[in-house]
Formats: sequence, structure tokens, C-alpha cells
Amino acid sequence: MTNWDHYYATRAARMQASEIRELLKLLDQPDIISFAGGIPDPELFPTEAIAKASNAILGNKGRATTALQYAVSEGYLPLREWLANYMAALGVKCTAENILITNGSQQGLDFLGKLFISPNDTILVAWPTYLGALQAFNAYEPHYDILPGPGSNRTPESYRAGGKPKPKFGYVMPEFQNPTGTSMTKEERIALLDAAEAIDLPLIEDAAYEHLRYDGERAPPIMALAAERAGGIDHAKVMYLGTFSKSIVPALRIGWIVAPKDVIKKLVLINQASNLHVSPLNQMILHEVAATLLETHTKKIRDIYKVRRDAMLKSLAAHMPANVSWTKPEGGMFIWMTLPNTIDGAELLRRAINDVRVAFVPGSAFFADRSGRNTIRLSFSLNDPAVIDEGIKRLASLLRGT
Amino acid sequence: MTNWDHYYATRAARMQASEIRELLKLLDQPDIISFAGGIPDPELFPTEAIAKASNAILGNKGRATTALQYAVSEGYLPLREWLANYMAALGVKCTAENILITNGSQQGLDFLGKLFISPNDTILVAWPTYLGALQAFNAYEPHYDILPGPGSNRTPESYRAGGKPKPKFGYVMPEFQNPTGTSMTKEERIALLDAAEAIDLPLIEDAAYEHLRYDGERAPPIMALAAERAGGIDHAKVMYLGTFSKSIVPALRIGWIVAPKDVIKKLVLINQASNLHVSPLNQMILHEVAATLLETHTKKIRDIYKVRRDAMLKSLAAHMPANVSWTKPEGGMFIWMTLPNTIDGAELLRRAINDVRVAFVPGSAFFADRSGRNTIRLSFSLNDPAVIDEGIKRLASLLRGT
Repeated sequence: MTNWDHYYATRAARMQASEIRELLKLLDQPDIISFAGGIPDPELFPTEAIAKASNAILGNKGRATTALQYAVSEGYLPLREWLANYMAALGVKCTAENILITNGSQQGLDFLGKLFISPNDTILVAWPTYLGALQAFNAYEPHYDILPGPGSNRTPESYRAGGKPKPKFGYVMPEFQNPTGTSMTKEERIALLDAAEAIDLPLIEDAAYEHLRYDGERAPPIMALAAERAGGIDHAKVMYLGTFSKSIVPALRIGWIVAPKDVIKKLVLINQASNLHVSPLNQMILHEVAATLLETHTKKIRDIYKVRRDAMLKSLAAHMPANVSWTKPEGGMFIWMTLPNTIDGAELLRRAINDVRVAFVPGSAFFADRSGRNTIRLSFSLNDPAVIDEGIKRLASLLRGT
Repeated sequence: MTNWDHYYATRAARMQASEIRELLKLLDQPDIISFAGGIPDPELFPTEAIAKASNAILGNKGRATTALQYAVSEGYLPLREWLANYMAALGVKCTAENILITNGSQQGLDFLGKLFISPNDTILVAWPTYLGALQAFNAYEPHYDILPGPGSNRTPESYRAGGKPKPKFGYVMPEFQNPTGTSMTKEERIALLDAAEAIDLPLIEDAAYEHLRYDGERAPPIMALAAERAGGIDHAKVMYLGTFSKSIVPALRIGWIVAPKDVIKKLVLINQASNLHVSPLNQMILHEVAATLLETHTKKIRDIYKVRRDAMLKSLAAHMPANVSWTKPEGGMFIWMTLPNTIDGAELLRRAINDVRVAFVPGSAFFADRSGRNTIRLSFSLNDPAVIDEGIKRLASLLRGT
């Protein structure tokens, strides 16, 4: 066999299999209660509406040609215009020229990494942060440092200590962060903007879970706050990532980036060179489905996920030993648990699968430095309350026995 | 306005708008005869078969869930298995484990660039070569040199002269190359393999147009020849890029990479980090359509494109002045014309659009060093013979007047 390592680019050394996705492959056994995957419940997919939209598009000759022919790299204009209105309702005033359609927001992360990161640049992320963002950015060989904000006491000066080059950007998920489920208050968002301005730091705001708020009041997007200060988003230094993967379905692979026009122009070139464009058929289906039922559909799924979140919080309170703690998210799909320092999440997972047939994701993969070994992520999105209660009971019994 | 250039990665300096795609935006005026875009004729799309497949998938609950939920990064297994059989028929023995599904073969080019190219690596391409490949690779900041083969008299030693590092790979489109339309004979493919082996050079074989042969006999894929020498594709150093964009439709965005298993494993990680996966709905539709009608459908489109190629060759012979020459392709979508040295293709285009309402693509964009200014690319895929004749007549009259 050829040893291909000699032929690869240096970045290939950092490409390692995702523990989460490798795990997901092993969890098909029906007797396992899985709190692992952060995936939507397929029972809630608006399949009929998608089929209807697909039929309407492919049944009309002009629309079918648009749906199946090569298209511009910017994305389907009616969808971008619809999204501009959608963003305005969130407080972000923009036009279609501020929006690029991507193949899911994972591709948005890759494109932003490609545009901003040269090897050995420093980028700032939360500790922990979304594993998929670390994977996307890793291809561009950055160093990581801790983002100013909740859980960090870093001063702006500390990032430049010893003549270090300015960090390239900060990545933040202010609503129902993956993996902790926590959200930033308006004051925390303003403090982050202040800190970012002090070191001239562009921010990437990842809003993957923003439709999934079950209670509490949402704070404005960081992009809205930044645009207000700067006199419009074209003058602000924030890029916003949205997706329909959690609110409608993942597999049409439709996400979007909102950014200053100059940044979008560069991102369009990146899309052209690395992808040409996202499937117009999928963009057109999503446009039709989102325009017709985003509001009613997300209300429906929120009601169901809320019941599951409540069930998990109730079970945790009822069964868990006193030496573990967990977050109480107002939305999203995850609860984050901190174990005693002596317990390793990965080791606990092996025993949980083996002894009590329960799965979750060990927390260390979400830390850029692989610390946080005594943390785990629990997803409540896929299971009914009774199953959640049974799974948490089993996990609690294992933890009590350790 | 922020000057974003200060914030970008060094690679961003190489991201420039594609002349072809910028041009395509300007060619909507109905009185222009366009030989510019290399795109399939939408009148030939199997729209009904696609609609039927989409209905069948979304109308079945189990299949609809597979089509709309997150999926593995490798691609839809039944499609990969079907492609393994398809490749075997071309002489390439492989299994599903040798195949990754990509968002069109443009994404395959990006992924291979990401895996192999570190900044300042040298890669070898034909002079001219596919513009989209140059764009995909540019993001990884390589230098370009000329691939050994037809049109090059480079010796293997010359690539290492002066202690230069070994080139990372060679990129070649042996069937109906974009932009020249020419194909490599079996002897030329063997000579390329010999030269590649002499400098231990992996090859990327881009087969985008392989379904579009109108006459002549096809030579085996370079991958088949290399696998025969090496004792199987897992031991050979060739990566093969396929796509349904020219044979079925572009906009489902389904391409594939065939490569040694070890390379596929790394590419799967790249796909996971930069894309998660290609839309399963689109993969399932394409699988169904390809399995049912690839043979009959491509026969139908070949018959029509052949008539158009013949018409263009006939018009060129009838009308062009003696000081221009052109290729006589056995397939594909393009004819490549060489003008007198005194004529600049880009300048000719401006006058052709202005004076005679004809469009094409100036050739220099296809050269890594932007040479070849006296060349142009003519596509015959979109127009009927009478329109082709009229367009060539107009272009010839302009050339006679220069």
C-alpha cells in the first residue's frame, strides 16, 4: 500500500475522524437510548409540503429548467430576498446582496475559514465550542485562543501580549450554543462587541438553533447590535450564519451567510471555485416551504422539543447524584453536564453503552485544547419523555455506582 | 467602508472573478448568439423522470426520512455501489469504499486541492486547462508548471532541476478536454503514466465529458491503465473525477471521486468538515434516474450534440478565413480556435458582441500563466445548426474584416 501521508498537504495531519460521527455509526442498535446526535426528529419533517413544492417546481417547464440548470453562485434570488426580509424581522437590515446561499451552514464555516485564516493565524472560540466549527477551521491550520466573554476573564491587551499578531476573527454561537445549550444575554453580547472592537476583531455569529427557543426572551443578534453601532451591516465587522437544518430539514442542505457586501463578493468567488452553486431545486423547494410554513412549523416543533427538554431537566433533577451539575437551556437541543474531576466522559461513555445501554457525547471534543474531559453533552431532541426518563435514570445509576 | 483586504487570508488575493461566469451574466439579450457557456441544453433534461423519482422517494415514509435527514459523509451507499459497477464497465475495478459523492465534480477539485496542496507547492496542468480547476486549486496557493504530454516536450528530469521540490500532482482531462475538445490516445495516456511514474507524480483524471463521445473509439481511463500496472486502484496513484452534470442534469449537483481507499478516507473527513454531506434527496433521485435511463438518455443527447458539432465544423470550414485554425473534437461541447498572433481573444469578444452580436470565451483564462491570448473557445452545445451557422458566419465576417 502507498503511504499517502508523504503526498498530502501539511493541513492533512489535522484532519481526524469526528468522534461524534464515528459514534453515530455505532448507535443503530435498537436497545440503546441515545442522547448523542444533535439531529432533528424526522417524525417532525414537513415531508408533504416538501413533496408538494418539488412537484410544483418540476411540473412547470420554466421553473424546472431553473431548478435543474447551472445557476449563479450567489444563490436563488427569490430565496435571498425572502431571507433579507426574514433577517430584517430579527433586527438585521440587509438586502439580497448581503446574502450567500451555502450547502448548509457547515459550508459557511468552511468558506469563512478559507477567506480569513492563513496558517498559524489565531482565531478565538469559546471553551467549549461547536466541534464542526473546529473541524472546518482546522483545514486552514489556525491556532486557537479563548474568546472574551462569559467564562473567560481575558483582557483585550492579553491577545497582543509579547507582540503577538492580532487574532483573525472570533466565532460565537450566542443562542443555545452547541454543546452547552446556553445563550448570551444582551449585556453579554454588548460586552463581547466592546472587547472585539478593542482588538479590531471581526466576529462570526452562528445562529444554527435560533428557531428553537422554548422560553425566555431572545436578545438581538450580535450582528444587529454591531450594525446599529456602525451605521449598517456593510460597515460592521460581523458575519452571520443561518440554516434551515434544525427548523425545516437538514438534508436539503440549505444555509446562508449574511455579511457586508464586500465580504459576500469574495465568498461568491469562493463558492464558484469550490462548489459552483447549491442545488437550485433544493433552494426553490426550501424557499417555497419556508415562505409557506416556517412560522407554523417551527411553533409545532418547539412545542414538542420543549416537552422533551422539560422531561430531561425533570429527570436530571430527580435522579442525578449531587456531585454532577448541568445547564438549564432556554432552547436548542442540548444539555451540558459537568462530572466530578475524577470521571472521564469518554470512559464513562464506554461503560454507559456497555453496562446500561445509554449513549451521549463526551465533552472534550468540543474544546480546542481537548480539555474538559469531565464533561458530556446530552441531546433531548430525539426521544419521548418516557424514554428520556429511562435513559437518565440508567445514566444516574451508573454515575452513583462510580 | 471597511477595507477587508487587511483581514483576509493571503490566499484571498488570488480569488478573482471568473471571466466566463461574469460574461454569462451579460448574455441574456435574446439577439446574441452565444457560443460561450459550456452548459447542457435544458431542452434535453429528463425532467419527467426526475419528477417521478422525487415523488417516489418523498411518497414513501422510510425513503423520505433517509432523503431528508442528516446522512453519512461518504455518500448514499446504493448510488456508490451503482457507480462501482459503472466504473467497472469503464475498466476501473473498484468498490463503494473507493467512491465519495461530491457536490458536483467542482467540489471534487476543491477537496483534492485541499488534501494535496500546501502553499507554494507545484502542480502540473495542461496549457490550456479547465479554468474551474485553476480556480479550485488557486485557493491553496500553488505554483503551476506544464504537464508532460501532448503539446509539451518536458523531460521528467526538468521538474527537479535546481533541486526543486517534487510536484504534488498532475491534473488532466483526457477525454474532450475543456477548453480544446481534444482527447488523448491510449499511447499518449501510457506516455503520461510513464512520465508520472518517473517523477512519482499522482494524477487527477477529470472525466467530466466522458459520456459525450460522438465518434472514434475511446481509450481506457488513465486510472484503468494505472491500476493494471499497479495491481489494483488501491495501489495506483490516480484519482478520478466523474459527474452527472453533462450526462443528466447539472443542478442536482452530483459528482463523485474514485480513489484508493486511504485517500477516500481522508476525503470523507474533508467532506465532513466542509460540507457534512451532499443532499441525500438529490443523491437518491440521481441514483434512480441514472439506473433507469443513463444509457438511453445519453444516446439521445449524443445524437443531438453530434449534429451540432458537425454543423459547427461544417460552418467553420465554409466561412473562416485561412489564417485561423481549430480543433476537430470527437466529443464534448467545445471547439478551440487559434487566431493570428496579432488578434487578442478578449478584444475580439468585445467587438464580436458589439458589432455582430456573437459571444464566446477568450482563451487566455484557460492558461495558468494567462498566455494564449490569440485563442478562443466555442461551445456548440446550446444552439441548433441554423443558429450555429449564422453565428459562425458573423464571426468569420468579423475576422475577415480585421
